[in-house]
Amino acid sequence: MKIPPVKGTRDFYPSEMARRNWIVDGWKTASICNGFEEYDGPIFEYLKMFQVKSGDEIVEQLFSLQDRGGRDLAIRPEITPTLARMVNQQINSLPRPIKWFSVPRLCRAERPQKGRLREFFQWNIDIIGVDSPEADAEVIFTSLDYLRRTGLTSEDIRARISSRRLLAAVLGAISIPEDGFDAMYALLDKKAKLPPETFEALLREQVSDSDQARTIMDFMALDSVDEIERVVPLDENVEGAIANLKSVFASLDLMGVTDFCVFDPGIVRGLAYYTGVVFEVHDIVGELRAICGGGRYDNLLRDFGGPAIPATGMGMGDCVLEILLHEKGLLDSQVPRRHLEYFVACADSESEPAMYEITAKIRAEGHSANFSYKRGGLSKQLKEAASQKAQRCIIIGQEYSDKQELVIKDMTTGDQTSTGADAFLTTLRSD
Amino acid sequence: MKIPPVKGTRDFYPSEMARRNWIVDGWKTASICNGFEEYDGPIFEYLKMFQVKSGDEIVEQLFSLQDRGGRDLAIRPEITPTLARMVNQQINSLPRPIKWFSVPRLCRAERPQKGRLREFFQWNIDIIGVDSPEADAEVIFTSLDYLRRTGLTSEDIRARISSRRLLAAVLGAISIPEDGFDAMYALLDKKAKLPPETFEALLREQVSDSDQARTIMDFMALDSVDEIERVVPLDENVEGAIANLKSVFASLDLMGVTDFCVFDPGIVRGLAYYTGVVFEVHDIVGELRAICGGGRYDNLLRDFGGPAIPATGMGMGDCVLEILLHEKGLLDSQVPRRHLEYFVACADSESEPAMYEITAKIRAEGHSANFSYKRGGLSKQLKEAASQKAQRCIIIGQEYSDKQELVIKDMTTGDQTSTGADAFLTTLRSD
Repeated sequence: MKIPPVKGTRDFYPSEMARRNWIVDGWKTASICNGFEEYDGPIFEYLKMFQVKSGDEIVEQLFSLQDRGGRDLAIRPEITPTLARMVNQQINSLPRPIKWFSVPRLCRAERPQKGRLREFFQWNIDIIGVDSPEADAEVIFTSLDYLRRTGLTSEDIRARISSRRLLAAVLGAISIPEDGFDAMYALLDKKAKLPPETFEALLREQVSDSDQARTIMDFMALDSVDEIERVVPLDENVEGAIANLKSVFASLDLMGVTDFCVFDPGIVRGLAYYTGVVFEVHDIVGELRAICGGGRYDNLLRDFGGPAIPATGMGMGDCVLEILLHEKGLLDSQVPRRHLEYFVACADSESEPAMYEITAKIRAEGHSANFSYKRGGLSKQLKEAASQKAQRCIIIGQEYSDKQELVIKDMTTGDQTSTGADAFLTTLRSD
Repeated sequence: MKIPPVKGTRDFYPSEMARRNWIVDGWKTASICNGFEEYDGPIFEYLKMFQVKSGDEIVEQLFSLQDRGGRDLAIRPEITPTLARMVNQQINSLPRPIKWFSVPRLCRAERPQKGRLREFFQWNIDIIGVDSPEADAEVIFTSLDYLRRTGLTSEDIRARISSRRLLAAVLGAISIPEDGFDAMYALLDKKAKLPPETFEALLREQVSDSDQARTIMDFMALDSVDEIERVVPLDENVEGAIANLKSVFASLDLMGVTDFCVFDPGIVRGLAYYTGVVFEVHDIVGELRAICGGGRYDNLLRDFGGPAIPATGMGMGDCVLEILLHEKGLLDSQVPRRHLEYFVACADSESEPAMYEITAKIRAEGHSANFSYKRGGLSKQLKEAASQKAQRCIIIGQEYSDKQELVIKDMTTGDQTSTGADAFLTTLRSD
């Protein structure tokens, strides 16, 4: 009975697993260097958890299930609701700032396509309890810091940064009514994907006043924070939002990632829950979906039944990232290959007991070792060592029975040396 | 709107996450030292995948779901079916032996109780393509090697080893009909949990012939492989099974774990799919469920539509293990605490730019660093450094603006030293 895997999922054979581990380990290292602590939650939660933040439409994209008591559950499509639940549960005992990261496995019942699978891994970093723009800058910096560590440069990727607070202030300053903001966000979010004339036509349809439409068009064409005050009417809200965004750019500059960063008012982010700075990192060629995205969401903890606590964060999936790293030649060149340190061979059957003992001792010293189950002659064992990509082969034979000496063959150079077994094991210990 | 977590799942706050990572990293290290390579599969598979090996009864214990095409899926309750599917898919190109490990997240719709949750992590090791008893010994050795690395000794745990092949041979040698084997396995599997007189009564009920019953009773009372031939009639099958089991014990002896190992005919393992050596590791006090269990399963790949290829493996969950390690005082003493290397403080507001720069540079050198978002005076920042358990505090103030010097405060001893910023960063690089 042959059963196939489910479409949109991946099998991680050892070489694919090595790639996944390299990516996930990189996420963890960057998180820890940037002062984040790791957390995780369950793979499933109550279904309604995922409706709080993203509404009923998300139910379409969920793998939902029932437990034996008939309760509605769902496999997590994102970890932010779990984060909000966990923080709210211990809100009084967690020292702030809460600077946490996670690398959850997530599932979405989407149609699989390039860079989008039904099951994937997503790096999440969040800073909770800080309304300072420094926290927004830290989230953007940490995302770029990881990407930079993979070998990507400012020739490859760009962090496109904007602010929902600024956008709301601008719309307010030109007297767009507040109940029209969401529809406007939805349109502005599409700008990058539409031909300019289509975007303008749709905008003029939505905004009947031509001055309003002109200001929005001018604002959306900007690529520097310094120019904002030239094109939009200034009021307290707009000025506050500009100062906030400038402060983020100033921190990023001091942290040395200016080359990666640009102001882009076209970054709106679909989700309704963002309240401040928003950003996405894109490949410069622009053929892929966003590599990551995030921003400030100051209302979420309150929406999940907790106090109003400011928060800012980022999510980066593994699928688009892996495509980009592969295209840039940064994946196969950096993912470590299998690394079996020792293969222990015996030249004759009298050496078999010693083969077991030496293998067990090498392993006990924290080094990897295998031996052949098939055995056969020494040349067959050396062949097996080569097929397992062993770095060195330990040959146990006459020298061992005579004087407890091991022959060590370097599998790359072919060089052979002899050494006393005890001395060899002592060396391993100090490695 | 407050939503609770689902019963039987766990939230991993940073301290629980550190414990889980310590356990999982230990599994990975032991696997790699013992020559295994890592793999993983999807979190869900077609529902019928899980029925092949374990029948319809497993459906009761599954979290099943449907995709949008109405196909029946299930969250994996174990990874062995995925392993069988993956190996069969690439059976002609995978070099053998296939020596693989995985640390999957698994879910079972069980009633939560001590050591048994609805969501858990399980270490799996498998050797495929080898019928030699050395492979069975390697699986047992690797399990013990991990447990030994945690600090558990032969005073704490015991590997109880038997053989389904031996049991079948013994039942055959005393003329129990083959279609009665499964019922017999089910009864013998219960022996450890029943009072001796109850077990004997049930056995005599199932086996009417009193000589047969006597032989089974005698066999089940053994604790050494050497005594088997004293109590059961010897035929070719029995002799072959004894030789096979003796060979496993001989390998374990040479690998230095004899103290941990005992022959225990009461180890049957419920699952019908075992065909040879079977084992479980238990705490010696015997108050917990098995820490791990496994054995030889030579028919599984064929059952999943592949060729008949011998295989042997082991699974160890994290729940019972964590309880035992905690009880033995081996958990909190060994799990590393949060390790923030540097907290960068500024003595005055002029030093803020340098604070960002130095922080970013420390991180770029691969070390962890934070700074205060709140700032306030130096003493407040030092307090925050202490609450984040920073090892050292870098103070940037007058010395820095005058002569580019940093003050480094050791947060354990309170000692302060000054050093040039460049020299400090160079030292970091070589760490």
